[in-house]
Amino acid sequence: MPTRDEIAAFLAAEFPQTKALVSAVGDRGATVTHDVGLDELRPGGTVSGPVLMELADVALYVAILGEIGIVPLAVPTGLTINFLRKPAADRRVVGVCKLLKVGRTLAVGEVWLYSEGVEEPVAHVVGTYSIPPRRAPESPST
Amino acid sequence: MPTRDEIAAFLAAEFPQTKALVSAVGDRGATVTHDVGLDELRPGGTVSGPVLMELADVALYVAILGEIGIVPLAVPTGLTINFLRKPAADRRVVGVCKLLKVGRTLAVGEVWLYSEGVEEPVAHVVGTYSIPPRRAPESPST
Amino acid sequence: MPTRDEIAAFLAAEFPQTKALVSAVGDRGATVTHDVGLDELRPGGTVSGPVLMELADVALYVAILGEIGIVPLAVPTGLTINFLRKPAADRRVVGVCKLLKVGRTLAVGEVWLYSEGVEEPVAHVVGTYSIPPRRAPESPST
Amino acid sequence: MPTRDEIAAFLAAEFPQTKALVSAVGDRGATVTHDVGLDELRPGGTVSGPVLMELADVALYVAILGEIGIVPLAVPTGLTINFLRKPAADRRVVGVCKLLKVGRTLAVGEVWLYSEGVEEPVAHVVGTYSIPPRRAPESPST
Repeated sequence: MPTRDEIAAFLAAEFPQTKALVSAVGDRGATVTHDVGLDELRPGGTVSGPVLMELADVALYVAILGEIGIVPLAVPTGLTINFLRKPAADRRVVGVCKLLKVGRTLAVGEVWLYSEGVEEPVAHVVGTYSIPPRRAPESPST
Repeated sequence: MPTRDEIAAFLAAEFPQTKALVSAVGDRGATVTHDVGLDELRPGGTVSGPVLMELADVALYVAILGEIGIVPLAVPTGLTINFLRKPAADRRVVGVCKLLKVGRTLAVGEVWLYSEGVEEPVAHVVGTYSIPPRRAPESPST
Repeated sequence: MPTRDEIAAFLAAEFPQTKALVSAVGDRGATVTHDVGLDELRPGGTVSGPVLMELADVALYVAILGEIGIVPLAVPTGLTINFLRKPAADRRVVGVCKLLKVGRTLAVGEVWLYSEGVEEPVAHVVGTYSIPPRRAPESPST
Repeated sequence: MPTRDEIAAFLAAEFPQTKALVSAVGDRGATVTHDVGLDELRPGGTVSGPVLMELADVALYVAILGEIGIVPLAVPTGLTINFLRKPAADRRVVGVCKLLKVGRTLAVGEVWLYSEGVEEPVAHVVGTYSIPPRRAPESPST
């Protein structure tokens, strides 16, 4: 399975627009972080919802790549986010993904989003990815 | 209720980062569009999921502002997206929101996302916003 | 493709516990109804949420069977419901499903739920079903 | 705050139709169980999706009552379920709810559903309840 550095290099090459950084990957999960820029704040000084959704999407994608290998054909099929608390404007956002299932054609994971250093989560995400039925030789489908 | 131009001006001032443009607002709905940039494509030449989520979020927000007035305190509480088809890489994305309910404290809407000029939708979103329970007298803008 | 009567007979045989009746099926959609019993009311005299979810699930399932044939292996993968208004305690509930996508392995549909004879919907559902990747030649019923 | 027995008695009186039993409540969570009856199986010998949704809804409701007191006016506003694995036909289903947020007007919780005695969950739910803004004296809001 790919290392954190390999996945980070893949992300940087394929998604140069993302500001998300890969902190950890493996054990059916991943942790990613995102520096909040001024242009990502909403009125009232809070991080905008789409920034949180993008970070959660990256966390899911990275966790799945860590599990099935670097498969660019994994595509998202659905995502549900619940916003729980106002994120701090001056802290990085951290997304912690745990995969709930990696099946033959579908992977499901949840992502907890935090303002770095704050215990209570700011949002919770559940997302699904469609994964190619035929995988690379190291993970043959049945 | 605010006009399309007033809401567009509010968005441009408060969310300068968004590329979404307001095409129409009113009648418990809104239409917004988004020019797809090269930096918003995923491997395979399709529009990234977070771009669609951001556009849907803006469509919901604009539709709600059109209904309750320009109330910066409306905040998203949840959003569910289902990705249906691969968006065209070379077409603008259009988000068409219809509000399903505008209650005392919660507004719910759905958004259909399209590649401009293509009939079949690329994604479907349902989102909820919390709206301030007591509105200022006719919701003056800030 | 199966007729309304064939699907109704299949439901009655395989899901004898459901109170849902199939009113219409076809054209990538379905309509089902449900007589509300006293034991399905919540405090305050409204239809309980799970009754609405069950009806929506049946509507989706029937619409999918109408599209791909009577395939018992279609299984739900996810469902999101938003409750919009209090259903009437003394009216049947009607679920109207439209499929948004019927792909190779995944079908997605939305369901509007109504108190019969009332225009405003009481709930909105989006649900996904996994469908068997290889269909038997023109999906014969079992 | 109400005890497990008080909440169980309230459920039995107000929702006589539910088969869910309250195992534990408190600490911003709840555990409920459900004996699977033959009439709740789907083709293939698995527990039907609506049974899981109903159990998750009860788990959420019980957890919220345990936190804010027995407030019949708490009503569900939305629920998302992801089905992960086929439940065993011959085991009870267990729902374990943890509340993610109990705000002034909205409570959000997640529920993990299991076949009793099996480690891997069969489904995951996130649900929201609207709670009355002014609570009864025995559960003052902060």
